[in-house]
Amino acid sequence: VKKPENNLKNFLEPESVAIVGVSRQTGPESYNILENLLGYDYRGKIYPVNPRASQILGVKTYASIGDIKGNIDQAIISLPRSLVPRAVKECADKDVRAIVIVSQGFADADDEGKSLQKEIDEIIQSRGVRILGPNSLGTSNSFINFSSSFVKLDLPRVPVTLICQTGSLFGSFDLRVGKFIDLGNTCDIDMIDCLDYCEQDQDTRVAALHIEGLRNGKGFIEAVSRLARKKPVIALKTGTSEQAALAVQSHSGSLAGRDEIWQAALKQSGVLRVSEIQELRDSTRAFSRLPLMKGNKVGIISISGGLGVIAFDTICRSGLELAAFSPSTLKRISGLLPAWQGVNNPIDLWPGFMVSKQPFARLLSESLDSVLADAGVDGVLFMWAVRSPPVSQDLEDVMSRLARVYPGKPIVCCFTGDCAQDAEKRLDGLEGTLAFSTPERAVKALGYLARYSAFQKDRQE
Amino acid sequence: VKKPENNLKNFLEPESVAIVGVSRQTGPESYNILENLLGYDYRGKIYPVNPRASQILGVKTYASIGDIKGNIDQAIISLPRSLVPRAVKECADKDVRAIVIVSQGFADADDEGKSLQKEIDEIIQSRGVRILGPNSLGTSNSFINFSSSFVKLDLPRVPVTLICQTGSLFGSFDLRVGKFIDLGNTCDIDMIDCLDYCEQDQDTRVAALHIEGLRNGKGFIEAVSRLARKKPVIALKTGTSEQAALAVQSHSGSLAGRDEIWQAALKQSGVLRVSEIQELRDSTRAFSRLPLMKGNKVGIISISGGLGVIAFDTICRSGLELAAFSPSTLKRISGLLPAWQGVNNPIDLWPGFMVSKQPFARLLSESLDSVLADAGVDGVLFMWAVRSPPVSQDLEDVMSRLARVYPGKPIVCCFTGDCAQDAEKRLDGLEGTLAFSTPERAVKALGYLARYSAFQKDRQE
Repeated sequence: VKKPENNLKNFLEPESVAIVGVSRQTGPESYNILENLLGYDYRGKIYPVNPRASQILGVKTYASIGDIKGNIDQAIISLPRSLVPRAVKECADKDVRAIVIVSQGFADADDEGKSLQKEIDEIIQSRGVRILGPNSLGTSNSFINFSSSFVKLDLPRVPVTLICQTGSLFGSFDLRVGKFIDLGNTCDIDMIDCLDYCEQDQDTRVAALHIEGLRNGKGFIEAVSRLARKKPVIALKTGTSEQAALAVQSHSGSLAGRDEIWQAALKQSGVLRVSEIQELRDSTRAFSRLPLMKGNKVGIISISGGLGVIAFDTICRSGLELAAFSPSTLKRISGLLPAWQGVNNPIDLWPGFMVSKQPFARLLSESLDSVLADAGVDGVLFMWAVRSPPVSQDLEDVMSRLARVYPGKPIVCCFTGDCAQDAEKRLDGLEGTLAFSTPERAVKALGYLARYSAFQKDRQE
Repeated sequence: VKKPENNLKNFLEPESVAIVGVSRQTGPESYNILENLLGYDYRGKIYPVNPRASQILGVKTYASIGDIKGNIDQAIISLPRSLVPRAVKECADKDVRAIVIVSQGFADADDEGKSLQKEIDEIIQSRGVRILGPNSLGTSNSFINFSSSFVKLDLPRVPVTLICQTGSLFGSFDLRVGKFIDLGNTCDIDMIDCLDYCEQDQDTRVAALHIEGLRNGKGFIEAVSRLARKKPVIALKTGTSEQAALAVQSHSGSLAGRDEIWQAALKQSGVLRVSEIQELRDSTRAFSRLPLMKGNKVGIISISGGLGVIAFDTICRSGLELAAFSPSTLKRISGLLPAWQGVNNPIDLWPGFMVSKQPFARLLSESLDSVLADAGVDGVLFMWAVRSPPVSQDLEDVMSRLARVYPGKPIVCCFTGDCAQDAEKRLDGLEGTLAFSTPERAVKALGYLARYSAFQKDRQE
């Protein structure tokens, strides 16, 4: 049986879906896939299957998959596990090529589960259907208002695709993602299929991977290397210790492998490895919102010498360097500071603010412009306390202008003070600049951008 | 000249303060110390000094310090630097023993600044006054609604005292602190004075230090070792790289020293070293809100196997271990899960939730109680998605009860879902349990508790 060319298209861009096993329960905590889909305003055809209802939420239901007349791009099966193999077979009979199995308790469970999985595997082999799961939330695609997830999601249209081996990352931990794929127990569709999809997909500018363990290491390295040459790829590889690797085996049934091997393989493939969920969040945001660092030199403007030192520490830990300002930059900056103050990178702007006779927006604009204009600066960190809405507004105006004037240099920010969150939100609407809650997180974001840029350069030389 | 016994009392617990150099400007961004103090409802006497006003904000002002009749525990000097030495002398004449110098531009600045500092040093020597600063926000003490800071602060009454070498940590980065001390440029009052204060102070149960560099390393080690024997001490040592150490020198004029030496010295003293502001935040919160871990064994209840693996990774990195559940615990837990599911630590509770016929509060309570009751468990991580207010309420009720039943075992949580923040806030009102935004941060918090407990045990053996 020949497998279809684009393995993921029906999963991520379905024009019609059947939901097999739709509950009549609706409202909070009912985890109703149909209810979610209607809420997203998905424009494709929806066929709910439930033999005990004629309609649910105003949508006509069908007693079985076979009763549906139209074409079905994707079926989502959410039934007690013993009923799943028969439903898969009915899907194959109806020529459904893409099936998400939400149900749990198969190969990773008891003997009965293993035998049910075997039945499913045989249908995959003999009928050429493709299966995502079992134990999968399926996919989401914000660009067509679609998700098969029983957990209701926000669907922000951001150019990040997250491929994960646990659905608990869907819509959690402030991960802003335009497309999700939950591999679940990976009985068929695997990480490699997803990487190939990301490589071709126009909506994907950044790929993020959550990896517990994989079966085809060689194929993965080939696919991920290909992808990383075109787009930034970030990986959170979990199950890193020997003990944790055993836990992975019991969770997803796959082998986690020795961590040193992963470390080397990911590095060589040009994949940015992160070790915490927060870093996954920050790095995907950085790549989707900021230009790359052309080199590794950072200019810092800070509200205090102490925060400058803290940022400097992180710069040293992140493979970055403090930029050496040119004489003309130093001269411009010194014009903003009291005469007694030395001018250095990091710049402590507070004494300048205290003596300044000009409006804050001017001081802000002039200091940032001085640093951004310096040819020896590849990216800028700005730290300030935002204690009133006008300052927040000034920040938005100045950052918006400077990001347009210097489109090749990322500006990361760290705000404190009562209006910090307001300022962060304002920056969220801009390209080229982004705020983080601590200096360390902001600097690490620049580090990701510099590392990927260095990988791209090394390849070209 | 004999120095007073308790060096910090006048700085942190003043019954009367003079503010030398009060601005007539008020409102947002005016950084008016008097306005802040009035806002806190500080009950001590306040004497504003400003020769060009007769009253500010309804408070009688004085033309000079000498004009004040009453006793003055503390003077806060916020004047152009050239006027500072004379003001210090006037304070000495008026027998003010504790002086905060807010002004900047002294020993760390140009020749004029160095010479002004020399004048101040001579007054310290000859008159026995104590000085905090220059370049200091001074102190805050939420227990008496006091702060000398020109930045308006929240003053939560929590048992954490933060000593820092930059005022930019005051009220920033979600650091909840009951008492603050900003050493500024440390011309007199130093880290050792502050450590001694913390050792004696009843309001201080946890001490947090931000260290750039110190002059008296030996004295510091002695004082901090004494303190760490009694109370948890956390240190964010910055200026770690050689380059950054030079930046410290230009910021605070002190030597940062080689990082390996710091690492060893802090460890031997029983100080918990953290390397990021976020860790400083999380660790102080953990120690002020949770019991210590008696050992290093963690029980995990998770909404997904994947998050369990991520938590397990952090456990291995934090010197913790996964608890091996007793047979009776395993039996109790298996009663909550579908028959096909293996029972292991980390517990994946989601399949149990899906098949459960009982209310969520019962499942929650029974699963947590099983793990907490196990003698082989020293602390628990609970991860769940909170998607409706009733679940949030259940969490508050169950956690509140269990924290009382098991007062010796910390319960850390990580919530996702729309109502995660609501659940976090509810837990904020409870003792013995605390929520963090990611599994990694939650596990690291348990790690801090276990490390301090191990240090305490090692000392007793």
